Amino acid sequence: MHIYDLPTPAVVIDVAALHKNIAAMAEIHPGRRLRPHVKAHKCSGISAQQVAHGHTSFTCATPKEILGLAAAGIGEDFLLANEVVDPYRLSLLAQAQEDALITVAIDSPETLSAAHKAGIKNVLIDVNVGLPRCGIQPARAGALADTARQKGLTVRGVMGYEGHLMMETDRATKKAKVHEAMALLAAAHNDVGGNIVSAGGTGTFDMFSGTTVNEVQAGSYVLMDSQYQQLGHPFVQAMWVMGTVISANEKWSVIDVGLKSLGMDHGNPSITDHNVWFCSDEHITFSSNEGTPSPRVGDRVFVTPAHIDPTMALHEVAYVANEYGDVIDEWPIDLRGW
Amino acid sequence: MHIYDLPTPAVVIDVAALHKNIAAMAEIHPGRRLRPHVKAHKCSGISAQQVAHGHTSFTCATPKEILGLAAAGIGEDFLLANEVVDPYRLSLLAQAQEDALITVAIDSPETLSAAHKAGIKNVLIDVNVGLPRCGIQPARAGALADTARQKGLTVRGVMGYEGHLMMETDRATKKAKVHEAMALLAAAHNDVGGNIVSAGGTGTFDMFSGTTVNEVQAGSYVLMDSQYQQLGHPFVQAMWVMGTVISANEKWSVIDVGLKSLGMDHGNPSITDHNVWFCSDEHITFSSNEGTPSPRVGDRVFVTPAHIDPTMALHEVAYVANEYGDVIDEWPIDLRGW
Repeated sequence: MHIYDLPTPAVVIDVAALHKNIAAMAEIHPGRRLRPHVKAHKCSGISAQQVAHGHTSFTCATPKEILGLAAAGIGEDFLLANEVVDPYRLSLLAQAQEDALITVAIDSPETLSAAHKAGIKNVLIDVNVGLPRCGIQPARAGALADTARQKGLTVRGVMGYEGHLMMETDRATKKAKVHEAMALLAAAHNDVGGNIVSAGGTGTFDMFSGTTVNEVQAGSYVLMDSQYQQLGHPFVQAMWVMGTVISANEKWSVIDVGLKSLGMDHGNPSITDHNVWFCSDEHITFSSNEGTPSPRVGDRVFVTPAHIDPTMALHEVAYVANEYGDVIDEWPIDLRGW
Repeated sequence: MHIYDLPTPAVVIDVAALHKNIAAMAEIHPGRRLRPHVKAHKCSGISAQQVAHGHTSFTCATPKEILGLAAAGIGEDFLLANEVVDPYRLSLLAQAQEDALITVAIDSPETLSAAHKAGIKNVLIDVNVGLPRCGIQPARAGALADTARQKGLTVRGVMGYEGHLMMETDRATKKAKVHEAMALLAAAHNDVGGNIVSAGGTGTFDMFSGTTVNEVQAGSYVLMDSQYQQLGHPFVQAMWVMGTVISANEKWSVIDVGLKSLGMDHGNPSITDHNVWFCSDEHITFSSNEGTPSPRVGDRVFVTPAHIDPTMALHEVAYVANEYGDVIDEWPIDLRGW
């Protein structure tokens, strides 16, 4: 089947671009130096490619992401880099510990207590390094680790997500700020102990030399989006939402890709050589740049999302295509939901 | 089960508020004067409540919405108010014509041809009334209808969606502009013929007296969102995304509701008596207004989305609650996807 035979909207992945991105990152952060984040794509088929390139530890945002990968035998060391107090979901993770190494982030006595009650064996202290979100204040991290050990849990180390620095475009400024944030994490690690110092994302993946960080949690680099493209990293766009033109006139065209098939928090998506006017629930209205012929009804159009993570979460399946546009595989986006 | 026992994030519907909204609209536009839009919620359980209040015709944005309602026996007259050129999906609609009255919008020779080839019996001419999206230019509508009839199709009338006027807040300006748009639709209807003159949405539902419009396509009024609340209509918020506090300190709190559980194109969601700082993939960071106690880890928080349609499309099920917070029903959001 050719991608032009697919029903739309459809997530299309360029398999060569995907492997280029995975290989580029694996060269810089081989094996366990990278703990690829699953939340960026929620697709075990992509995680399996990362395993083939040598990564066996994964970062997850939801219990479902861990449970799905563990059940499929993809990876062997899973970090829930997020706080969870739901006893049922934590109990599912505790059951899965028999077959996989699972570590749960905690940042408070309450999240520690929830993990302990559910029977979680391994935790990691989530440290706030500047982003106003989860994470304990660095100075309190050691005491939380002590309490966890008193309860009989293994504390594997620390993580600290410097999400507020991902889109800083001046590299010198970014490096200085990342190192400042990682100094906080290093101090907390000194109090906490354990082997893991986990941080980072696609926006900061190459900023950790000279820090104590020993694993990077990047995820978006595998597929990319128009926002991360701005950073000039060695990763290329590997995913598009393909649409079909359903209406067209002299001034504008309309495709069947809209708010329900695109993450919109980073703004409008992009279409190469075209100008996106606005998105509706089921449509994008756009015009063609000068010199680009306007599409006709029935033509296929490739949309680059502004934010990959919430876009993938909207689709049931990703179609994997080769350079000729043949569909060589279909990967369910099987780790969606909660 | 109480809503506080639900896993989060969870879509919660206040059944009394839902029925208040449906009843308020049914009083103004009873029976077939309203053709409720399904795209706002994609939930056949909600459509069934609208049938119970006397509406039996529905507006749909996707073939899947029609096929789902028709298979469930909810409603009897379905309008696909959107252009589709996919032969397979059109053939499914053609098969469903044996049990239900199905009408497909067309706005070009190409969309007419696709409908005709698939065996669609009834079409309606989608007329552009000012929103730069789908719809044929009014002056060309009659010729398209003639061609459709020559091919043996029944042309049931016209529709024209004045989506660009939904959020105009000055009622006099809005009425003048809506009437201007509906004059274009009336002229096209004069050329096209047929019984249906369909238009409107929740933002313009009470603007059609003195026009030829004989059915209104409102959908969002059943559940509402923070954007539509600004219009001062007689509809109340009936849906929230409930989250759980997973991290909290003196300055801010974090819940497990984020970009993957909220439509974000209209901006940040709202939390009563709290100030939303920003949303991440799986989180909202917010602070409490003066006089409001800060929540604690484990507390439940109710989030009002800024845009209802893409929010509902992110969830698998809606939990229906009574005034005591008891879950009295679970409605799958079964018409999602394409």
